[in-house]
Amino acid sequence: MLNVAVFGASGYAGGELLRLLHLHPEVEVTLVTSEKSAGKSLPSVFPHLTAYDHMVFEQMDVEGAQADRADLFFLALPHKTAQKTAASLFRKGKRVIDLSADFRLRDPEVYEKWYQTPHIERAVLKKSVYGLPELYRSKIRRARLVANPGCYPTGAVLGLIPALRKGLVEPEGLVIDSKSGVSGAGRAGRQELIFCEVSGGFRAYSLVVHRHTPEIEQELSAVSGRDITLDFTPHLVPMNRGILTTIYARLVNTEVALKEIHTVYRRAYAKEPFVKVLPLGQYPFTKNVQGTNFCHVGLQINPRTNRLLVVTAIDNLTKGAAGQAVQNMNIMMGYDEMTGINSMAVFP
Amino acid sequence: MLNVAVFGASGYAGGELLRLLHLHPEVEVTLVTSEKSAGKSLPSVFPHLTAYDHMVFEQMDVEGAQADRADLFFLALPHKTAQKTAASLFRKGKRVIDLSADFRLRDPEVYEKWYQTPHIERAVLKKSVYGLPELYRSKIRRARLVANPGCYPTGAVLGLIPALRKGLVEPEGLVIDSKSGVSGAGRAGRQELIFCEVSGGFRAYSLVVHRHTPEIEQELSAVSGRDITLDFTPHLVPMNRGILTTIYARLVNTEVALKEIHTVYRRAYAKEPFVKVLPLGQYPFTKNVQGTNFCHVGLQINPRTNRLLVVTAIDNLTKGAAGQAVQNMNIMMGYDEMTGINSMAVFP
Amino acid sequence: MLNVAVFGASGYAGGELLRLLHLHPEVEVTLVTSEKSAGKSLPSVFPHLTAYDHMVFEQMDVEGAQADRADLFFLALPHKTAQKTAASLFRKGKRVIDLSADFRLRDPEVYEKWYQTPHIERAVLKKSVYGLPELYRSKIRRARLVANPGCYPTGAVLGLIPALRKGLVEPEGLVIDSKSGVSGAGRAGRQELIFCEVSGGFRAYSLVVHRHTPEIEQELSAVSGRDITLDFTPHLVPMNRGILTTIYARLVNTEVALKEIHTVYRRAYAKEPFVKVLPLGQYPFTKNVQGTNFCHVGLQINPRTNRLLVVTAIDNLTKGAAGQAVQNMNIMMGYDEMTGINSMAVFP
Amino acid sequence: MLNVAVFGASGYAGGELLRLLHLHPEVEVTLVTSEKSAGKSLPSVFPHLTAYDHMVFEQMDVEGAQADRADLFFLALPHKTAQKTAASLFRKGKRVIDLSADFRLRDPEVYEKWYQTPHIERAVLKKSVYGLPELYRSKIRRARLVANPGCYPTGAVLGLIPALRKGLVEPEGLVIDSKSGVSGAGRAGRQELIFCEVSGGFRAYSLVVHRHTPEIEQELSAVSGRDITLDFTPHLVPMNRGILTTIYARLVNTEVALKEIHTVYRRAYAKEPFVKVLPLGQYPFTKNVQGTNFCHVGLQINPRTNRLLVVTAIDNLTKGAAGQAVQNMNIMMGYDEMTGINSMAVFP
Repeated sequence: MLNVAVFGASGYAGGELLRLLHLHPEVEVTLVTSEKSAGKSLPSVFPHLTAYDHMVFEQMDVEGAQADRADLFFLALPHKTAQKTAASLFRKGKRVIDLSADFRLRDPEVYEKWYQTPHIERAVLKKSVYGLPELYRSKIRRARLVANPGCYPTGAVLGLIPALRKGLVEPEGLVIDSKSGVSGAGRAGRQELIFCEVSGGFRAYSLVVHRHTPEIEQELSAVSGRDITLDFTPHLVPMNRGILTTIYARLVNTEVALKEIHTVYRRAYAKEPFVKVLPLGQYPFTKNVQGTNFCHVGLQINPRTNRLLVVTAIDNLTKGAAGQAVQNMNIMMGYDEMTGINSMAVFP
Repeated sequence: MLNVAVFGASGYAGGELLRLLHLHPEVEVTLVTSEKSAGKSLPSVFPHLTAYDHMVFEQMDVEGAQADRADLFFLALPHKTAQKTAASLFRKGKRVIDLSADFRLRDPEVYEKWYQTPHIERAVLKKSVYGLPELYRSKIRRARLVANPGCYPTGAVLGLIPALRKGLVEPEGLVIDSKSGVSGAGRAGRQELIFCEVSGGFRAYSLVVHRHTPEIEQELSAVSGRDITLDFTPHLVPMNRGILTTIYARLVNTEVALKEIHTVYRRAYAKEPFVKVLPLGQYPFTKNVQGTNFCHVGLQINPRTNRLLVVTAIDNLTKGAAGQAVQNMNIMMGYDEMTGINSMAVFP
Repeated sequence: MLNVAVFGASGYAGGELLRLLHLHPEVEVTLVTSEKSAGKSLPSVFPHLTAYDHMVFEQMDVEGAQADRADLFFLALPHKTAQKTAASLFRKGKRVIDLSADFRLRDPEVYEKWYQTPHIERAVLKKSVYGLPELYRSKIRRARLVANPGCYPTGAVLGLIPALRKGLVEPEGLVIDSKSGVSGAGRAGRQELIFCEVSGGFRAYSLVVHRHTPEIEQELSAVSGRDITLDFTPHLVPMNRGILTTIYARLVNTEVALKEIHTVYRRAYAKEPFVKVLPLGQYPFTKNVQGTNFCHVGLQINPRTNRLLVVTAIDNLTKGAAGQAVQNMNIMMGYDEMTGINSMAVFP
Repeated sequence: MLNVAVFGASGYAGGELLRLLHLHPEVEVTLVTSEKSAGKSLPSVFPHLTAYDHMVFEQMDVEGAQADRADLFFLALPHKTAQKTAASLFRKGKRVIDLSADFRLRDPEVYEKWYQTPHIERAVLKKSVYGLPELYRSKIRRARLVANPGCYPTGAVLGLIPALRKGLVEPEGLVIDSKSGVSGAGRAGRQELIFCEVSGGFRAYSLVVHRHTPEIEQELSAVSGRDITLDFTPHLVPMNRGILTTIYARLVNTEVALKEIHTVYRRAYAKEPFVKVLPLGQYPFTKNVQGTNFCHVGLQINPRTNRLLVVTAIDNLTKGAAGQAVQNMNIMMGYDEMTGINSMAVFP
């Protein structure tokens, strides 16, 4: 059994990790920490996690003996806190999967600009791997520090890898219009998140300033080999889970048939256990992936404007956070990649 | 008192019309028709419309005496049925506000291509006016047949009029990404619309083929003086009412300041009773306009991509259908334009 | 024009009051206060209340000149604060409609037991009138201090007045099972109220200890002439507005026909503008009263258990709070009772 | 591997069965039927069930060779159809778990009265076992035909077994007020179930005539040894899954302490893998059991009325249908009872 710890386990991503790890036959959760809930029993914070009724949240204390209590650490900590903790554990030889943004941006200047905080662990940053298995599986296999991707970037990048890699679309002028369920905003009690403020309404937020923008640009630039700057707009959907991303990209060759593009996507993801390219004429629906690690991809061409439209759906807490983290663990540890995350959606 | 009739009154737009007309001091509803519900009392179909408990849905019969029972007719009928009925009433000298798409597209060829049905009332079509008051108020004042705009076109066109008119943005390459509440899909019992299929999920639909596309293109072309072809993608939000539209347009002059654009919009809509340009930094939220005839507009610039982002919010059943129909009636009849439609949103 | 003030106007009941007062032709809102939002513009707190964009929340200061700025004061203040403020305004000769619980319970001992706070305005309490028009219309007409009923008590008491008054049901053993939308819990940002904690779930809360229990018992005892103790259980429904109350009462005479009971209810409420007894076979639905001041009542008998079942629906913020407050104002001021509150539900 | 078939697999209970069976290591689904969807691929009906993309719905034909294609048959068929099919398979020596109501009521006269249809398989009915493991585990172990309980009865009966068995509450005068998510109403496209008719509203339905009433009465009578007649009222909650049941029962001994009752419940369910009696002061929340086979139970006493209040929460599709069916299969086949159904809730 692999002993694993979850740091910052009282938020939604932490809860999702615990739910998934319970289904994983190779793993035992030996330590959970929470700043706010230290001392509380786990079911008092997450009454649905009945299987953990023997556990109590502890105060995080990496400098003490906590590092010895697990082999692999999932960090669901706020930015900046994650930086220090991940680096410390890394230096102690532990495996770390960091769900924060602290090690996602390879250029620390970009990080400092968008997150408005210094990056003080630049040496460790260089050793980290961006944890999108569809791009970096072999590096993840050898990594000791994996930067688990953001939720929006996961849905956006998976929608464009095949098209950009094959040069089917222009890297300029991309529009990425994303719509997320509310769990992406976290579990803190804020007025703008209470049920009555959200239910029955739809809004855009963080126009042109959302911090996932540079992350999307970094990965798409890496895929295309060109510096990409794009428009990314997040929206808030009155639903608990899920991200749907609608992508608009100009076709390089206006003669290309939709069917060819579909074939390119199908081939690109043929061996990916979690990416499903839907049949032509079908489009993703977030409910079909809720609670799962799947990403559904739908394709269409607009012959009147010569644009490729890609629609992707993921669960922001699963493929967009905890599920992908478990997938990364499976790769790092050499387990079958679907272990513990092979459930299908709870529908309806 | 103006006697008005509502044809096809048992759907959501019809119900919304009846709700609003009840609040209108100059109007009496003298006739309601419904194919499905003919013979039924109005509250048996709409239990919330208690003020109409004396009324019964009748079978539509324009060739009979029904035309004599009202001065102005609201048509909330299916496409094609509306065509014939509107034309017949028009020829009898009646005022007609048609909520269907049958008289919205000025070019009947375009209509026939997108709606896959012949337009058999081309002479009457020429006499009709597109009922967007912000563009055609003076024509509406003199019109006897008003084609009430579609819900998506209302939100999209209002978001771009000032920018296109002033040449601030390129007419090419527009992306219009819209998100609508479920009432836009009507009241029929279809499996894909039942609560469990919709609640908690988000999807795109009718990619590149939605029939509101040519309507948006027609009006934006008219505003800009150039033939516009664009990408329009509708999505379904798990909420009852509201449309949020996110618009991406390339700036002509990348030196222009957001503040200047904001001023252009504020001036363009300064005298409009129903269009509110929000302060910079604020973005529309559909809940703030639900049940009302208002359109909220928010603006932002992306200096990294030189795009203007416009976000608009309307209620699809009110400013997007029945409320705008009442606004058009007010203009046609010379009433104060806000009569009966000056309520603010029921929030939360 | 009657000058009115709303104290504690930044909560949901305050916002609903402002929405309704805007529709009232006899009234002008001259003062709004808010402890949290003092100094902020009204639309910055309630972006949907565009008609009030000239107003700013002030700090409440009854001892200063604020009392002179209005003739009638709506208090949407927390318990205890309301007590002092209402009494002070009352002593200055002002009319007060208090939406808090501070003057609802006629016996201050009962108040002190359930609210765990002393009642320090017992003299004023004696002068106050419980503001349920269906029970106390003539007293309200002459009152200067009206204690606006709680939301649950409004729905519960209206469901039992006719049956208890006519002795159709036993006053013992009543079960009142109520289900409320989330706006009843207020607008503060608390973790248990955020969208993700509420959406898609249903729960009971405050079993046997909810503070509306003695209020329901007080009014039903007054109606029946017997001391009533009952079971009242509130539940939280994932919806914004509305309370549905299901009432179980033992029939005194098991031979009585449902039709007779229906007639008793219809007669009892025949002249009430806001209580609608539905036809037999129909049951209330909260959506049919949302945003309105109506109470819908449905009836059934269980011949197998000899119980009468009554189901009522109200909007907790309207008939359950702000709408009833406006109704009380209309009665106090001699306006037509439906003025400003004659809208029908925004549906769907 | 056990070969299993799911008949009537295109509804919500069928889909839930397929989701759960995919997680079951001992089972292979070899046959799925659907009247409406015969000939369609499984993912075309349930796009979330990607693991079954090789399967096609067949027309049910028990008289043909279908009976040979599986060892155990789950029937998610309409009433009456189930009767015949179950009996036919039973006579062929197959194991059957029937999710319909056809074999739940031991007295065929009661069945015929409430379901208004003859029971033509009375001999087989006598051989069937009511599939509530908490009451009939040992019988289920030996059964070949299990009548899987209704969703409401499961939540109601589990809430009262310990209290009735120990004689803590009176069997007379029980009130069972239940609230269900919308999936209980099935997947057919009916107007009253579309999103806009349900979302944001709450209603009661089928007052005093719901068909689960005799089922609840049958099982509670069996537990208490007395003929029980009770009030059962179902309500519709705007959520996908879950049933919360609030039960009111008169205490026999008014001196009994809540703590003692709590101990009775804890002991009664100590060995039950799926029934969790919550700590005193905590009440069930449907979200904490969604997608799971758990039943959460909360307890309270009202000392003012001498009533015991029990609140239970289940997922209507899981413990209330498909999950309990898998639990019954596990018992019948001698598998560990939690196999395939040990997941915790997907939260939020």
